[in-house]
Amino acid sequence: MRLSQLFTRTLKENPKDETSLNAQILMRAGFIDKIGAGIYTFLPLGLRVHNNICRVIREEIDAIGGQEILMPALTPKEYWQITGRWENFDALFRLKGGDNRDYALGATHEEIVTPTVQRHVFSYKDLSTAVYQIQTKFRNELRSKAGLLRGREFSMKDLYSFHTDQKTLDAYYEIAQKAYFKIYERLGLLDITFLTYASGGAFSKYSHEFQTVCDAGEDTIHICDKCKVAVNQEIIEEQSACPLCGNVELRAEKAIEVGNIFKLGTRFSEPFGFNYLDESGTEKPVIMGCYGMGPSRIMGTIVEISHDDGGLIWPEEVAPFKVHLVSLRQNEATDLLYDRLQKAKIEVIYDDRDLGAGEKLVSADLMGCPYRVVVSAKTLAEGSVEIKKRTSQEVELVKLGELINYWTK
Amino acid sequence: MRLSQLFTRTLKENPKDETSLNAQILMRAGFIDKIGAGIYTFLPLGLRVHNNICRVIREEIDAIGGQEILMPALTPKEYWQITGRWENFDALFRLKGGDNRDYALGATHEEIVTPTVQRHVFSYKDLSTAVYQIQTKFRNELRSKAGLLRGREFSMKDLYSFHTDQKTLDAYYEIAQKAYFKIYERLGLLDITFLTYASGGAFSKYSHEFQTVCDAGEDTIHICDKCKVAVNQEIIEEQSACPLCGNVELRAEKAIEVGNIFKLGTRFSEPFGFNYLDESGTEKPVIMGCYGMGPSRIMGTIVEISHDDGGLIWPEEVAPFKVHLVSLRQNEATDLLYDRLQKAKIEVIYDDRDLGAGEKLVSADLMGCPYRVVVSAKTLAEGSVEIKKRTSQEVELVKLGELINYWTK
Repeated sequence: MRLSQLFTRTLKENPKDETSLNAQILMRAGFIDKIGAGIYTFLPLGLRVHNNICRVIREEIDAIGGQEILMPALTPKEYWQITGRWENFDALFRLKGGDNRDYALGATHEEIVTPTVQRHVFSYKDLSTAVYQIQTKFRNELRSKAGLLRGREFSMKDLYSFHTDQKTLDAYYEIAQKAYFKIYERLGLLDITFLTYASGGAFSKYSHEFQTVCDAGEDTIHICDKCKVAVNQEIIEEQSACPLCGNVELRAEKAIEVGNIFKLGTRFSEPFGFNYLDESGTEKPVIMGCYGMGPSRIMGTIVEISHDDGGLIWPEEVAPFKVHLVSLRQNEATDLLYDRLQKAKIEVIYDDRDLGAGEKLVSADLMGCPYRVVVSAKTLAEGSVEIKKRTSQEVELVKLGELINYWTK
Repeated sequence: MRLSQLFTRTLKENPKDETSLNAQILMRAGFIDKIGAGIYTFLPLGLRVHNNICRVIREEIDAIGGQEILMPALTPKEYWQITGRWENFDALFRLKGGDNRDYALGATHEEIVTPTVQRHVFSYKDLSTAVYQIQTKFRNELRSKAGLLRGREFSMKDLYSFHTDQKTLDAYYEIAQKAYFKIYERLGLLDITFLTYASGGAFSKYSHEFQTVCDAGEDTIHICDKCKVAVNQEIIEEQSACPLCGNVELRAEKAIEVGNIFKLGTRFSEPFGFNYLDESGTEKPVIMGCYGMGPSRIMGTIVEISHDDGGLIWPEEVAPFKVHLVSLRQNEATDLLYDRLQKAKIEVIYDDRDLGAGEKLVSADLMGCPYRVVVSAKTLAEGSVEIKKRTSQEVELVKLGELINYWTK
């Protein structure tokens, strides 16, 4: 993509009507636009990042047998009444339709996925199975001042698994945990993300959150440095020790919840009467698990933990482009390199604008692509371009003929 | 994908609580699930079709310079008040937030895209530009009985273009028209889709709809067979002649509106004060166009026009899989073919279930993939498999070693 064509622009200063750091930088860099408190538009660069995060999640959830579907956001009241959550779910946006029926905007989808899978799954032979979507969700937050960390509208990957018994649920729950850590690894969050023990329900002592240590986090977690796990605030008030080793010297940190997994047991299958026939022909309730992860919140988290005064610093898997190609008034030569990079399938944004070096280099830092390639009269005189990683201060001169090899060799 | 793994199943009969033909067949084939009137879940096979339609649209809109963004569904009342549509837009879902503010669920996005682009575009040098999204929209329909043709929640590609003057808008409007016809061609709808003259606004005599002739359509169009264009019902009541050639012998047909394009002029830029600086430094209002197309409605339209008693008949570009591979109790040999097809990047669904030939062939017809490949003891005895196109009654025997070449040669 040529920057001269991109309709968005970077801002010189942080926007005044935004207090959250992640949204400030993303707005300054032209990645998102604010529509209201907790409501944002993803601009072209921001949408590319969001789509990359979704792609990583999709690949890892597909790899553990998740079957992708897409459920509606508009969900009739009747479904929520069956589980008793119409009245009790605080953050539910409720609205009335022209058909005089009541609807909720989906804040979670147990009420929809359970009867949907119920219409297709009847026998133990059909189980286990796992179904997910990546979809827009809505929560009627009283306050929403944390940018992409807590939106009134946000994206969510929600996976639901269905089993004949506790044992197969437990096994899948372990598999999902591993997939979650693979995702955090690919997104550059692994080292600071902790499996965190949280309250369970009727069906298991604990559920688990995945918490990324970050000062902007709204949660406090208590880390056991021996076991590399944590407990959340709610649990620490009941038992002030690591649930694995009993260690009481836990380290408190602010953290962002970037995922949660929960053994639902029969909490939803029972009210919907979702039973299966076992091998002897006996009806038994289906055992369920659910696994949430928010791509837009993860995008905000990456910004919070990976930026500097110059702007964004994207990990390679999520960067809007791998290479930020800057022409310092050498568009003729740089056009050729741009073509060559595109032919080599290297994702590149090309700053072909009629601007000075200072403004262009500031833009490149702000946008945060992993590799900056500068083409100037000086580098061309040496038959070279200048490559700088966003994470480094060092500059390398690379011969024009070696440029593609730099990434593909 | 193996059918034994897919959690959905086909139904023997049409669902009782659904009256629309497209939704009946899609539900029977396990492509969608009904949540409420005009509200559906896309199941794995249906989501693949929907994604394919979106991919085709995205490719063609990217090709005419559309820059993809993603706007929110939750839109604050203030934006709609600026244009006077808060009170006047009939089908708007309105709701109140916990912050005591009023919101609308986006039924269209002129009110959001205009101020967003305004924050980034200031000069004639930034224009023309075009911005689009593929996103979930909501309309508070009183009745919703047409399946995917008229959902309360549905998908929409909405493109908006921004120009310095009428001339550049007119030129882009022509380019968009051509892109729309390319899309209909790829989706198998070209021959029965007519550019249809509809009422314009303050800024042009006509707008245009794209209408696909179909008995299930809610609209009536009047076709000029000389010019291969049509006029809609509203226009025919004012002027009962072809706007191009004056022909009064127009042929009335039921049709489905599968797209519409509209010259907005300054209808939205003026209330938002969206001006640009021209070459002389004078402020002038930006001239806009908008271009809508609904992927979910197009999916319903394809079903309405392309099915038979046996079930769905997908055009190749949108089919959930290219090949429906059926093993008639020959899974060992068929597993090898399945691997070979996957390695050749041919999208294949493999019926490896423990069922009889009758049930499997009925499933294949119902799901409607373009090519059915049957592997039986009889075909294997001849070192062959049997290939049948979904659109044909004829069966071909193809040697095992020639199978991949059948599509790739």
